[in-house]
Amino acid sequence: MYGKIVLILCGLCVLTANIHCKYQPNWESLDSRPLPAWYDEAKFGIFIHWGVFSVPSFHTEWFWHEWHYNKTEFVNFMKKNYPPGFTYADFAPMFTAEFYNPDSWAKVLENSGAKYVVLVTKHHEGFTNWPSKASWNWNAMDVGPHRDLVGDLATAVRKHAPNVHFGVYHSMMDWFNPLYLQDKANNFTTQEFVKNKCMPELYELINNYKPDVLWSDGDWETTYKYWNATEFIAWLYNESPVKDTIAINDRWGNDARCKHGGFLNCNDKYNPGVLQKRKWENCMSIDRGSWGYRRDANLEDYYNTSSLVAILAETVSTGGNLLMNIGPTHDGRILPIFQQRLKDMGEWLKVNGEAIYKTRPWSHQNDTITPAVWYTSKPDQGGTINVYAIVLNWPKTNTLILGAPLSTSSTKVSLLGYAGYFSYVPLSQGIRIDIPSIPFNQMPCQWAWVFKIKYLKN
Amino acid sequence: MYGKIVLILCGLCVLTANIHCKYQPNWESLDSRPLPAWYDEAKFGIFIHWGVFSVPSFHTEWFWHEWHYNKTEFVNFMKKNYPPGFTYADFAPMFTAEFYNPDSWAKVLENSGAKYVVLVTKHHEGFTNWPSKASWNWNAMDVGPHRDLVGDLATAVRKHAPNVHFGVYHSMMDWFNPLYLQDKANNFTTQEFVKNKCMPELYELINNYKPDVLWSDGDWETTYKYWNATEFIAWLYNESPVKDTIAINDRWGNDARCKHGGFLNCNDKYNPGVLQKRKWENCMSIDRGSWGYRRDANLEDYYNTSSLVAILAETVSTGGNLLMNIGPTHDGRILPIFQQRLKDMGEWLKVNGEAIYKTRPWSHQNDTITPAVWYTSKPDQGGTINVYAIVLNWPKTNTLILGAPLSTSSTKVSLLGYAGYFSYVPLSQGIRIDIPSIPFNQMPCQWAWVFKIKYLKN
Amino acid sequence: MYGKIVLILCGLCVLTANIHCKYQPNWESLDSRPLPAWYDEAKFGIFIHWGVFSVPSFHTEWFWHEWHYNKTEFVNFMKKNYPPGFTYADFAPMFTAEFYNPDSWAKVLENSGAKYVVLVTKHHEGFTNWPSKASWNWNAMDVGPHRDLVGDLATAVRKHAPNVHFGVYHSMMDWFNPLYLQDKANNFTTQEFVKNKCMPELYELINNYKPDVLWSDGDWETTYKYWNATEFIAWLYNESPVKDTIAINDRWGNDARCKHGGFLNCNDKYNPGVLQKRKWENCMSIDRGSWGYRRDANLEDYYNTSSLVAILAETVSTGGNLLMNIGPTHDGRILPIFQQRLKDMGEWLKVNGEAIYKTRPWSHQNDTITPAVWYTSKPDQGGTINVYAIVLNWPKTNTLILGAPLSTSSTKVSLLGYAGYFSYVPLSQGIRIDIPSIPFNQMPCQWAWVFKIKYLKN
Amino acid sequence: MYGKIVLILCGLCVLTANIHCKYQPNWESLDSRPLPAWYDEAKFGIFIHWGVFSVPSFHTEWFWHEWHYNKTEFVNFMKKNYPPGFTYADFAPMFTAEFYNPDSWAKVLENSGAKYVVLVTKHHEGFTNWPSKASWNWNAMDVGPHRDLVGDLATAVRKHAPNVHFGVYHSMMDWFNPLYLQDKANNFTTQEFVKNKCMPELYELINNYKPDVLWSDGDWETTYKYWNATEFIAWLYNESPVKDTIAINDRWGNDARCKHGGFLNCNDKYNPGVLQKRKWENCMSIDRGSWGYRRDANLEDYYNTSSLVAILAETVSTGGNLLMNIGPTHDGRILPIFQQRLKDMGEWLKVNGEAIYKTRPWSHQNDTITPAVWYTSKPDQGGTINVYAIVLNWPKTNTLILGAPLSTSSTKVSLLGYAGYFSYVPLSQGIRIDIPSIPFNQMPCQWAWVFKIKYLKN
Repeated sequence: MYGKIVLILCGLCVLTANIHCKYQPNWESLDSRPLPAWYDEAKFGIFIHWGVFSVPSFHTEWFWHEWHYNKTEFVNFMKKNYPPGFTYADFAPMFTAEFYNPDSWAKVLENSGAKYVVLVTKHHEGFTNWPSKASWNWNAMDVGPHRDLVGDLATAVRKHAPNVHFGVYHSMMDWFNPLYLQDKANNFTTQEFVKNKCMPELYELINNYKPDVLWSDGDWETTYKYWNATEFIAWLYNESPVKDTIAINDRWGNDARCKHGGFLNCNDKYNPGVLQKRKWENCMSIDRGSWGYRRDANLEDYYNTSSLVAILAETVSTGGNLLMNIGPTHDGRILPIFQQRLKDMGEWLKVNGEAIYKTRPWSHQNDTITPAVWYTSKPDQGGTINVYAIVLNWPKTNTLILGAPLSTSSTKVSLLGYAGYFSYVPLSQGIRIDIPSIPFNQMPCQWAWVFKIKYLKN
Repeated sequence: MYGKIVLILCGLCVLTANIHCKYQPNWESLDSRPLPAWYDEAKFGIFIHWGVFSVPSFHTEWFWHEWHYNKTEFVNFMKKNYPPGFTYADFAPMFTAEFYNPDSWAKVLENSGAKYVVLVTKHHEGFTNWPSKASWNWNAMDVGPHRDLVGDLATAVRKHAPNVHFGVYHSMMDWFNPLYLQDKANNFTTQEFVKNKCMPELYELINNYKPDVLWSDGDWETTYKYWNATEFIAWLYNESPVKDTIAINDRWGNDARCKHGGFLNCNDKYNPGVLQKRKWENCMSIDRGSWGYRRDANLEDYYNTSSLVAILAETVSTGGNLLMNIGPTHDGRILPIFQQRLKDMGEWLKVNGEAIYKTRPWSHQNDTITPAVWYTSKPDQGGTINVYAIVLNWPKTNTLILGAPLSTSSTKVSLLGYAGYFSYVPLSQGIRIDIPSIPFNQMPCQWAWVFKIKYLKN
Repeated sequence: MYGKIVLILCGLCVLTANIHCKYQPNWESLDSRPLPAWYDEAKFGIFIHWGVFSVPSFHTEWFWHEWHYNKTEFVNFMKKNYPPGFTYADFAPMFTAEFYNPDSWAKVLENSGAKYVVLVTKHHEGFTNWPSKASWNWNAMDVGPHRDLVGDLATAVRKHAPNVHFGVYHSMMDWFNPLYLQDKANNFTTQEFVKNKCMPELYELINNYKPDVLWSDGDWETTYKYWNATEFIAWLYNESPVKDTIAINDRWGNDARCKHGGFLNCNDKYNPGVLQKRKWENCMSIDRGSWGYRRDANLEDYYNTSSLVAILAETVSTGGNLLMNIGPTHDGRILPIFQQRLKDMGEWLKVNGEAIYKTRPWSHQNDTITPAVWYTSKPDQGGTINVYAIVLNWPKTNTLILGAPLSTSSTKVSLLGYAGYFSYVPLSQGIRIDIPSIPFNQMPCQWAWVFKIKYLKN
Repeated sequence: MYGKIVLILCGLCVLTANIHCKYQPNWESLDSRPLPAWYDEAKFGIFIHWGVFSVPSFHTEWFWHEWHYNKTEFVNFMKKNYPPGFTYADFAPMFTAEFYNPDSWAKVLENSGAKYVVLVTKHHEGFTNWPSKASWNWNAMDVGPHRDLVGDLATAVRKHAPNVHFGVYHSMMDWFNPLYLQDKANNFTTQEFVKNKCMPELYELINNYKPDVLWSDGDWETTYKYWNATEFIAWLYNESPVKDTIAINDRWGNDARCKHGGFLNCNDKYNPGVLQKRKWENCMSIDRGSWGYRRDANLEDYYNTSSLVAILAETVSTGGNLLMNIGPTHDGRILPIFQQRLKDMGEWLKVNGEAIYKTRPWSHQNDTITPAVWYTSKPDQGGTINVYAIVLNWPKTNTLILGAPLSTSSTKVSLLGYAGYFSYVPLSQGIRIDIPSIPFNQMPCQWAWVFKIKYLKN
């Protein structure tokens, strides 16, 4: 970005001597940076929660926290299965990852239809999944896996999943890091933890792995000032090796969250159901009850594919991206149940991706008459807007009434994955589509179906 | 069974003083015992492979054998993950079973639609999943789980799975038991192993757990005489607490297999594809590559539900029972991928069980015209024979031509799970069924569909 | 032994066709066999307690027993250090023996001055330190050390300790073997345990390792008949490969102990203090509180060398052999404190062995006047009897009065390890020896001193 | 210290407003501080090496270093006993310390006659034996022992060993800390490691445990400036809670060692053999081959008590203190062989402590005629100088010639622990002491003997 044009496009940044735009370390300036286009176009990403919590693999990745605060079932689990005095750190050598095959992970990701992945590189437990200099003997190279889990996946994704952007999750806070606890005891007037651990980690992550997403977390106990967030982001946008490509989220302090940064995550599993003004992301987990893999999850705890497709449709329709989480095991495997769900998503998207990727919210999100219909839209190459009605329940009769689309004489209706156009009848409000009899095995897909409507009234 | 009637029904057994029939320890007599009716009626059982092999959980439950005989990948797996000198017995303390919940296993079994379960109580590794007196410190009470895995499942099944018969698998041979190896070195002219381990185990199993199935294995290196099989079975049929209810298989020696005993298993995954004279069973595993759980199995290694339903149809049609295997983990869990498959089977059988349970082979097994159709039959309460055509591929057009059934004027055709009768047209050879347009979400089931045909020509 | 001479020498055995003497399986016959001469001449042996109990290494080698019967400190030790449900068998893989160096053990034994070693090959826990066919997966080859602990020591002793006879300890009973418990519940009217475990083990031990001592134990809950002891010993004396060399003890049943067999052990640490009619052995442990190594032993729990020499003197004087016990660690080491004691014994015996090896009890054991003096005697090559007064406390003055020896005019008195004869004065009862001033560093030894007296009155 | 007097006594420190003397952060000032008197008077201390290296417990506490640099026997040890990929940090959970009893350690220390103890609180491995905030998850509270090893010993020593000063060893360097390695790669122009780890640890140690000795190490790769040593010591001397009592050593940089600080350690096992100008300390280990406990040490690797007493005599005679090292086991025990040596030292010092504690070097250190004699001296209460000749070999005859002491007519000679005075003969050079015949068991001690000589010529 050079010269005057920059001056116009980017009023809140400052031109430096060599005529580059420089973002200032304040939200007004930082928020003015446009989100890289790839992120909004991607729509669907995979979140991966993996860490020492994958060893006890019980109930939740917040295992340490819950145990520390004496939640009964965690205390009992430890009593029943481990000797007295066993600590959380004692789990680390059991984080073996011997079956970790980043290449096959990459293929699973590619085939899911996702366009980005966000790997947990450090959760609130403070254990870094890469050999961080700021976390000696509490990282995946020194203890447990004995390899660079982050770097190995970055390489594999870039090689075997050409359509998937590589991103990293990072918790700024470590629950029980004594430096953090000390800063906290000082009402966050000191920043020993930020200086010695949090920031060194972030710089390492960006410089070493050049991610396309930086997904910050663990911010909520204090303000962005404590975290030095604006200084860091200014560096990220101005000087880092990923300054032109990185997408970041909003979790940079309890006064930044849901307000500043890049896309908005707000709370976990945020899914507002109505169109949002800013780009947002719905992060949720296939296992309803946990982000990290937990051994006590049964089939009924996993969303089925119908539900997952429904959430994708709703999220994209209302302007969000969906970040769908899986939890690998302590020994490095993505279990078949997760593989199954991801494969299903990929199969659905192979037929219906046109209604998802690179789409924009339409004027309507829900239908005014038929429930469980979500709309998206996209201009075709000629600039005509196509509208996609994602129908979660196949009509019980041979007609489908949609209240939102207003037809013209040239309107065309088709079903993605099925040849030909369907006849329809304009109604006073919307249209009635006549659905032909399609034998079971000629249905283009399961779980949800997309009616593509072209040449509607603007 | 008393007096003269017995004499007629059971010519090959001998009447004892108290006028009970006594089977003799020879095959002629033992083979004359009728298989308990429940077994043929059940059609569908679940096999469970669980043992110390569930700890390395790598490639196959034959792990020890393959490693012992220096198969490269097993040797490498051990080299990579364990210290030198580590032995198979060293795995046993890691067989922790801390998540083993027999009640929820029982519910998973009940909901699968299976009517019996066969639990591995001892595989060729020799480790008994119950506290056997003949296997001190090499059993699940003394090492590892520290509980009676067999007894706990028996109790749970009887309580929570009222429709499921409890059965046990038992390998007579222990690959590496020194007593067995010694007998073998003596060309099986000595029987130290049979006297000290194999037989004591079998008597314990029967007396303690009173199973409805005794599924013998590990017989193949020698004859039934070595194993004392006929003596044992005579006791089982004459005196044991399960003499009236037990069903046994045929693996009692390399000269008995596929010839003598109860139902025939012949080889693993035996599925002859044509009607058999004697009752047989097709034992196979959801994981194509292993009976025991193996961590290296990916989604593509698991049969999908369509294939499983197809195998069930083929097996039942040709006179077999299907024993479908799952492998729990070392910590006692039936993973969600197995839960998913079993739940799917249960859902399919809820709609189509009428075409499976208590049926008999029909005059035809395949259809003469349409491929991928398997027939079963069953008299209704009035004695009329219903024929069930299990159609694996939904017709691509709106007609289904079946070459085997010959219609009468009163023939009625319906689809299980769907209301009403379908119209059909008698053909010179068979009939043509007209299938109405059924909207996707009113289809009675997935994976396969059963056309029930009543009042056919005999 | 042939023909008539045998008839005379061995009246209680029966001449067989090939004119060998055959012992009968009854005590009258078996007790008539002379103990092999080497055993009485040896006087001093080392006992080695090693087994799975060396893993918890806490309080006593009876760990399992005490824990099983809920002794508080054992229960607490387990609670504090191991997860719930941990069993004794779970200890076995931790019996690693990675530092076990039988060659250096042999050298330690050789240098201790001992003339035999008795290694625990199986204690009451039932775990065999050799790969017994009767103890599959509960032996040192299959679990833990992964080597033949017994065979490796036998070989090393024969190679590196030419003066040391190799012997084996074997507990007939296994506390918790279910076969034993069953026989016991049957009031020992059945012998399943004896047939399946105890006897096969004993035959293996003798045939494989050809020991010079068979030190039986674990007999006390029942009679020798249950144990088939007389049959076994008859085989041992008549046919076994060690029939001419083996020395056995007396622990063959609660009605044999302290009465029948070879040398008498009677109870542990048996030390009658007065001359015994039959050859006996005092087995005791350097660690006062345990036979197996226990980590909770402190310096004061170990006998110091003075006490050990005193016990040796007393034992040999009254007709016994001393079997002094050490306990190696779970990882195969004889700790330096044991090495120190054994080296001290060796140094003392290098100077004073003449008063110990191949000696016989003298007419007196204690002195009638000076306490803490023990006598032994031995004919020299010319047949003259030398008397040895082992003096435990160095005289506080320059004279030593001994009441037992009656001098003649040619009596000669010397101090072993010190050149020259001492002057003495005949007393009405005994003699008074004049001890010259010996500078500290010219004393021949520490701990006890031997005055050799020649040409006494018979 | 107030006002003018201070100005005189302490010329190199600066008077602050409140008229205290303030040391400046330069060696000239810091070296001017007098060593606290207790340290020189103590003469004998115990060094304790304990850490994660006590887990492999093989060859040396430099295990990690040697292994890291591929020394064959370390690489082989790991290959033989651990799975591939096992790291040093994986040892930490095995540092169990379950038998650690600081009260009984304190008693062992007290009874050894030592007057101070120096505990390794962090060795070059970087693992802190106390819960340091600067070493999260790499300290004894978070991993392994799960307790504050340092604090617990400090408390116990203060309670049960009233004569023993508590001191701490601290390695400034961590071999493999990435921050240290980075500073080193920067030629020590950066100080990230010093700021983030080394200094926070030192302040914690001093503030939390208030030790009487701070024994610094790990300084050698760079200068005291890198370490910020003078600033730290200035704080230690001016403001710390131990400013009046602490004794420090000289290992504060490769340009400080053997020159600056408190007492001089120079190199390990430094023992110059001749009188030194400055107070120095001989640190050495009872195990000749290692400071940390190593399982492969045999009896011959341990100094015997004679040698230890000889080293003490030589060291004290030439102006040094002796710091004698023991290595506890990973499970928290001081093994009996160490207990034996310490007990022996205590017994010797009970008799001969008068010749050690609070003594000063005499005009001679060795004797000019008789070898193996070391002198110390001490004024009695009346101010008369007593000279102590520590004789390592008991004279072979009944006289002892000493060349160094010049007698007067009132000279008195005695043997410590033995009543009465000995006669002597003045020689032209020295004296000849006549030693009476002392029966073995009236000797006051073993290993070395002290002749006390009073009223010598000055």
